[in-house]
Amino acid sequence: ITSKLPNVGTTIFTVMSALAAEHKAINLSQGFPDFDMPDDLVNLTCEALQNGYNQYSPMAGWMPLRESIAAKVHDLYGVEINPDSEITITPGGTYGIYTAFTTVLQPGDEVIVFEPAYDSYIPNIEINGGVAVRIPLEFPTYRINWELVRAKITPRTRMIALNTPHNPTGSILRASDIEQLRQLVEEFDLLIMSDEVYEHLIYDEEPHQSILRYEDLRQRAFVNFSFGKVYHCTGWKMGYCIAPPAFTAEFRKVHQFNCFSCYTPAQVALAEYLKNKEAYRSISGFYQKKRDYFAELMKQTRFKPLPSYGSYFQLYYFDHLSDLSDKDFSIWLTKEHGVACIPVSAFYQEAIDNGVVRFCFAKKEETLDKAVERLVKL
Amino acid sequence: ITSKLPNVGTTIFTVMSALAAEHKAINLSQGFPDFDMPDDLVNLTCEALQNGYNQYSPMAGWMPLRESIAAKVHDLYGVEINPDSEITITPGGTYGIYTAFTTVLQPGDEVIVFEPAYDSYIPNIEINGGVAVRIPLEFPTYRINWELVRAKITPRTRMIALNTPHNPTGSILRASDIEQLRQLVEEFDLLIMSDEVYEHLIYDEEPHQSILRYEDLRQRAFVNFSFGKVYHCTGWKMGYCIAPPAFTAEFRKVHQFNCFSCYTPAQVALAEYLKNKEAYRSISGFYQKKRDYFAELMKQTRFKPLPSYGSYFQLYYFDHLSDLSDKDFSIWLTKEHGVACIPVSAFYQEAIDNGVVRFCFAKKEETLDKAVERLVKL
Ligand SMILES: CSCCC(=O)C(=O)O
Ligand SMILES: CSCCC(=O)C(=O)O
Repeated sequence: ITSKLPNVGTTIFTVMSALAAEHKAINLSQGFPDFDMPDDLVNLTCEALQNGYNQYSPMAGWMPLRESIAAKVHDLYGVEINPDSEITITPGGTYGIYTAFTTVLQPGDEVIVFEPAYDSYIPNIEINGGVAVRIPLEFPTYRINWELVRAKITPRTRMIALNTPHNPTGSILRASDIEQLRQLVEEFDLLIMSDEVYEHLIYDEEPHQSILRYEDLRQRAFVNFSFGKVYHCTGWKMGYCIAPPAFTAEFRKVHQFNCFSCYTPAQVALAEYLKNKEAYRSISGFYQKKRDYFAELMKQTRFKPLPSYGSYFQLYYFDHLSDLSDKDFSIWLTKEHGVACIPVSAFYQEAIDNGVVRFCFAKKEETLDKAVERLVKL
Repeated sequence: ITSKLPNVGTTIFTVMSALAAEHKAINLSQGFPDFDMPDDLVNLTCEALQNGYNQYSPMAGWMPLRESIAAKVHDLYGVEINPDSEITITPGGTYGIYTAFTTVLQPGDEVIVFEPAYDSYIPNIEINGGVAVRIPLEFPTYRINWELVRAKITPRTRMIALNTPHNPTGSILRASDIEQLRQLVEEFDLLIMSDEVYEHLIYDEEPHQSILRYEDLRQRAFVNFSFGKVYHCTGWKMGYCIAPPAFTAEFRKVHQFNCFSCYTPAQVALAEYLKNKEAYRSISGFYQKKRDYFAELMKQTRFKPLPSYGSYFQLYYFDHLSDLSDKDFSIWLTKEHGVACIPVSAFYQEAIDNGVVRFCFAKKEETLDKAVERLVKL
């Protein structure tokens, strides 16, 4: 077979998690919690399983879950979303993003992607015949340079891919970014793919600049969310895509022939679980405590922090500690010091190495304790 | 957005299931059981959930599950499959099929598809820039006319899509088909997509002609299976794709950026459940009893059966009972007699109406009783 993705190897997450396992290192690389998910959600799922909710859910998703999502969106962002025509349940955020690109892109269509970028965006675009136009975020703020964006727009530009809170950097969109975005998408009639899988994981009382808040922007957008990331169950592979009715109709045409529908018992459970507002309102505080706990511990080491405003992740400079590339440093750290991290250059197509690595702090305090005990030895 | 699938509406399964619900009809349309899945598998899943198996499984799938699958394949077909390099866990059979087509097809590649065909194949091919070359199965045997296949092969033919046991007809591949297939794929160097989601659901002691049995064929094939179909949990959306290492490597490149990985708790449970050979060896007998029970009841009606050798489905002629098209007949039957079925013409791109409808007999005996009570009134 002629490879569809000739330049793609195994994702860095798989590589680093495997290396961590092999060397019995503490795994602060791939983004997943090492603590238990909420008991209530586990119990609701067992009930659904035992009560026989094991057959196909509707293609677009279990309606009570879509209704609970609409209620949550209303509670958080004050917007009315139609559960029937604007919400589709997906087997994870990554799948929703892939399906959005597949829905929109025609051969030759250009998509603006900011680097560092979550590693699926560019292959998703290319597999659909699109062209990723890569724009580096400013270093070291990891914010968008909107002048650069304007300069890169061509008549083929179709879509702009956003991610807030941002993986791997922990940066977030601000109100001023929204203003700039609005001007560009209107002027050039662009669509938006917004990856908001780290919704709720946003700190210091900053608002989440969800595209859903802005009626004009949301009418141009596929906005993707994840239950796994926010409810500590990344292995559930469950999320949803919110898009206006005409987009949703096309999204579902692809979805119905890709996965068709999602795991029913979890949908039944989540429909109930989401009714508890405290469950999602408490997430930000829960993770902010982890971010602060980790940051405080890390002061004992010689790593230098960059700010993290959101997500599971905190970046650290290591370049004053080693001459290695960030990839080699990450491998060395895993093998020699027993702590796995992710080199930020892995999030660039043509590796830009700023001497920065990413640690995941979505871990038990004792895991963070042990990791830092090892890192202080550097 | 320019539609990627302009001719695609809502799937017939969604349409008929919704109509059945609306008219409180007995739903013998969409293929799913109305009885409980095995308690053991439910309990194993709850244990996995409670024991904290809620984070990402490896991209290719939970290794113990892949090992259990390899053991099962060996037990049934006497073949050694490498769980590391030849098995990928997928969120359902439909997804595995989509991903196989995405992996292989380049623009303009032709794929041979037999009609009636499961409704995802052709959109899957087209969305990947391929061309479906449709060949009708012989009527009323629903077997492949291999001379017709040979006549349709061109230099662009890349792949042949097979499905045994066959949805919607219940026909199966025979040893003689395998011989013909072998000649063609060798002569024209074709790949195979084999949809075997109804594995085990095969009756009258006929062998399942899995492509996995034939070493030379399997080296050219993506073979897709479903746990949902065989373990009575269609809502789990869980299956697997078996392909030789070079194909699997490319399949996983697509998969890692589509869904990435599957629901972990079910994988942990299935790994254990599959070790019980009786659990899968008993499926054929279980469903044969249902097929026979339904066929016996249906003798009281004026519907005339076609043979069903496998799958959940039994076809019946209705054309001596009504002048309606099969679509209108199915709608009428649902509304006026309270029994939903699927018109077989829905499985053709250009509707061929042979006056035949499909009933799903994967139902409790009491459901079948009630349905036939209504059907005798015709
Ligand atoms: C889908 S595996 C990657 C998990 C993740 O989002 C990350 O580590 O960045
Ligand atoms: C994926 S919904 C369709 C179920 C099914 O396989 C059928 O009814 O043919």
